[in-house]
Amino acid sequence: MPDLLIRNAVLEGSRTDALIADGVFTDIRPGIDAPAGVETLDADGFILAPAFYNAHTHSAMSIMRGLADDLRLETWLNEHIWPFEAKLTEEDVRRGVLLAAEEMIRSGTVLFNDMYWMPDVALRVADEIGMRAVIGPCLISNPLAKFTRAEELEEAYREAAHPELLALSYAPHAVYSTDERLLRDTAEKARDNGRFIHIHASETRAEVEGCVHEHGMTPVAWIDKCGLLTDRTILAHGVHLADDDIRLIRDKGAVVVHNPCSNYKLCSGQFDFRRVFEEGGCRVALGTDGCASNNSLSLFDEMKFAALNAKIQSGDPECGKAEDVWRIATRGGAQAFGLDAGEIAVGRLGDAILLDPSVPALNPSRNLASALVYAADTSCVDTVVCAGRVLMRGRTMCAL
Amino acid sequence: MPDLLIRNAVLEGSRTDALIADGVFTDIRPGIDAPAGVETLDADGFILAPAFYNAHTHSAMSIMRGLADDLRLETWLNEHIWPFEAKLTEEDVRRGVLLAAEEMIRSGTVLFNDMYWMPDVALRVADEIGMRAVIGPCLISNPLAKFTRAEELEEAYREAAHPELLALSYAPHAVYSTDERLLRDTAEKARDNGRFIHIHASETRAEVEGCVHEHGMTPVAWIDKCGLLTDRTILAHGVHLADDDIRLIRDKGAVVVHNPCSNYKLCSGQFDFRRVFEEGGCRVALGTDGCASNNSLSLFDEMKFAALNAKIQSGDPECGKAEDVWRIATRGGAQAFGLDAGEIAVGRLGDAILLDPSVPALNPSRNLASALVYAADTSCVDTVVCAGRVLMRGRTMCAL
Repeated sequence: MPDLLIRNAVLEGSRTDALIADGVFTDIRPGIDAPAGVETLDADGFILAPAFYNAHTHSAMSIMRGLADDLRLETWLNEHIWPFEAKLTEEDVRRGVLLAAEEMIRSGTVLFNDMYWMPDVALRVADEIGMRAVIGPCLISNPLAKFTRAEELEEAYREAAHPELLALSYAPHAVYSTDERLLRDTAEKARDNGRFIHIHASETRAEVEGCVHEHGMTPVAWIDKCGLLTDRTILAHGVHLADDDIRLIRDKGAVVVHNPCSNYKLCSGQFDFRRVFEEGGCRVALGTDGCASNNSLSLFDEMKFAALNAKIQSGDPECGKAEDVWRIATRGGAQAFGLDAGEIAVGRLGDAILLDPSVPALNPSRNLASALVYAADTSCVDTVVCAGRVLMRGRTMCAL
Repeated sequence: MPDLLIRNAVLEGSRTDALIADGVFTDIRPGIDAPAGVETLDADGFILAPAFYNAHTHSAMSIMRGLADDLRLETWLNEHIWPFEAKLTEEDVRRGVLLAAEEMIRSGTVLFNDMYWMPDVALRVADEIGMRAVIGPCLISNPLAKFTRAEELEEAYREAAHPELLALSYAPHAVYSTDERLLRDTAEKARDNGRFIHIHASETRAEVEGCVHEHGMTPVAWIDKCGLLTDRTILAHGVHLADDDIRLIRDKGAVVVHNPCSNYKLCSGQFDFRRVFEEGGCRVALGTDGCASNNSLSLFDEMKFAALNAKIQSGDPECGKAEDVWRIATRGGAQAFGLDAGEIAVGRLGDAILLDPSVPALNPSRNLASALVYAADTSCVDTVVCAGRVLMRGRTMCAL
C-alpha cells in the first residue's frame, strides 16, 4: 500500500500534517518530516475529515437512474426493474458500477457494501479503482438467480490486486425471496469462512406480515432462528422493528443499515432512529440503497434525511443530532465491516477526505458535524484518500 | 439589461442556441447569428435549464449557520437566535447576505424573497450582484423592531441600479407577533402601492391554537379578515392548514411556500403536498427558510425533501412527482412574484442555468426532472444567468 504525507491540512481548527504508512495513520502533527520516497499532498488549508462508508448499495443499478420514479413498489419492480434486469449484460453491470464508483468517490465515500447480480464485475471494478468494497453473491429463489455468479466472485477475489481493501459476504436477498434451507446453508458457510451476511430485513410492513404469517415470527427472529444473526450480519433497512427485534439485534451485535431516502421514496416507512439507535443501542450504519430507489449515492443526502427524519418521526428536534448522524456515516459504517477507520487518528486506517473551506455551505466554520450533515454536498469534497491512495484530487478522478 | 447569446446548449436533448435580449428570451433555435455587440457564451453541450426561485428566506441568517442545532424551538429562539440578533450589526447583515447570495447562486437560484432585519442591506447586496430579490421590512411587535428600517429600504430601492430585478414587500412577521392594527394598516398600504405581502402562516400547531384561542379563527382566516390575503400574498410554511384555509388560499390566489427542511428540523410538521397542491389547487412555491433552521440555501435539498415528504406523508409513492416539484421550484416560484420566468421558452425572462452533463448524478440522462429532484446537487451547476447577466461561469462567481 502506498504511503502518503498530507501537509497543511486543518483538523479540528488547527493546521496539521498527517502521515499514512502501510494504509494506516501513523503520525498526525504539524511539521512531520517526509520519509524518503513518500508521496506528499499539500492540503493547502483544506479541512481533513473522515471518509464515508456506504453500508447498503446495489451499485450497478446506477444505470437505472431515472428509469422509473414516483411509482408503487409492485409497479416499479414488476413493470420496470425486473424486466430491465432480465436483459442485463455484463457490460451494463460494469458501466453501472463505474458510474456508481465515481459518484461515491465524488461524494467522499471509500467503501460500499454491495448486493447485486454479477458481483464479480463489481469486485473487479472496485479493485481496479482501489476503493474498499464488501461484495456478496445475491442469493434468491427467482429467475434472476442466473446472475448470482458465486463462483466467478470467488475467482475475482482470488485474482484481486488489492485484496486488503475487499471482503466477501453472502447476500441472501430477503426472507420473502429465500427458503429456510438456503438461509441455514448460508449461515453455516458464513460461520465456516467468517464472511459477512448482507440481507434486506423488515423493510416493509408487508414483509413483516408475510413472515409472521409464514413462519410465526418477525423477519429478524426468523433470520436469527436460521442462524444468520451475528456480529457480522448487515440488516438493510430495519424500518419495521418490534422491541424484541431491537433487543435481539443489539444482543447479537448485528448492524442495521438506515437508508432514509429509499425508505421515503418507496414509502417503506420511517426508520425509528431513537428507538433503534439512541435508546436501543444497536449498531447503525448509513446506506443509500440502489440508485433506482433514491436516486443518489451521496451520503450527504442520506445524512440530512437521517437527521431530519429522526426529528419529525420522534417529534423531538433534539433527536438525530448532527454529531450522531455524522458518526454513523463514518466510524459506524467502518466498524460495521470490522474496519478500525472512520476517524482521523493515529492507528486508524488511512481513509480521509479534504473539504474545500471556501464553499459557502462550510461557512461560518462553527461546527463541522452540523455543516456536513445539514449544509454540505458533494461540491465540498475536493480530495478523497483510501488506504493512503489518492482516488480524487481537486475534484478530478485519479482512478477512473 | 445586457444581451446574451448562449451557444451550443442542450435543451430537451437537442443542441440549441438561445438569445436573451433586454432580459427576455427572444429566440431559441440552433444556428442563431449573433447580433452585433452581443456577448456570447459557449455552453459546450451543457444542459440549459430554468433557474430556481427561493420563495422564503431570511438571508442574513447565513452567518448563524451551525450556531444552534438540534434544539427545541423555544431554546433555539430564546437562548441562541434572539440574543445573537439583539447585537446584530450592519456588517453582520451584509456578510450574511453576501454569503447567502453566493450559496444561492452556486445552487442555481436567481431570486430570493427575504424577510429580515435591516432589509436595505439585503436589497443593496442583491442590486450589486444583479440577482432578483423581493424584500420587505419585517413588521413585528418586539424589541428587534429597531432593525425594521422601512425608510432605509425605500431609499435603497430608489437608489437601486437594477430596479427591474427588485420588488418590495411588506413582511408582517406572523399572526402571533403582530396586532390587528398593524395587519390592517399593512393590508391598506399594500393595496395602495401594489406590493407583495410576506408572512409566516400556520407554521406550527401552537401558532394555530393560539390564533384560534385569541381570534376565534385560524391564522389564514385571520390574515384574510385583516385584508392581507391577496394574489400578491406569500404565506410561508402552511404546515397546519384546515380544509377551509386551503379553499380560501386557492380562491384568493395567494401562494403557499413549502419549506420542508426547516419544517422537519424544527419539528413544525409535515406539509401536506397532496391536500394543498395536488388536490387543493393552491399556488405553491419552494423556499429554504433561513440558514439557522435548515441549514442550507440550496433548493436541490428542498426539492428532494419536498418530493420524499409528499410520498411518506401521503403514504403514496405517486404523490410528489419529480416533474411537479421541479415546476414549483422554477415556474411556480417565478410566478409567485408575478414573473413570466422559470421556463426556457421564447417570451420568458432570461434566467437560466447550465448543468454539467458529466456529473454522475445527471447520468444516464433519461429524465431531467428526476435527475434534478432526486440526484443532483450544487456540483451540477456550472453557470447561472439572471436576466441575461452571467452571475456564475465555470463555477466561478462573476458578481462577487
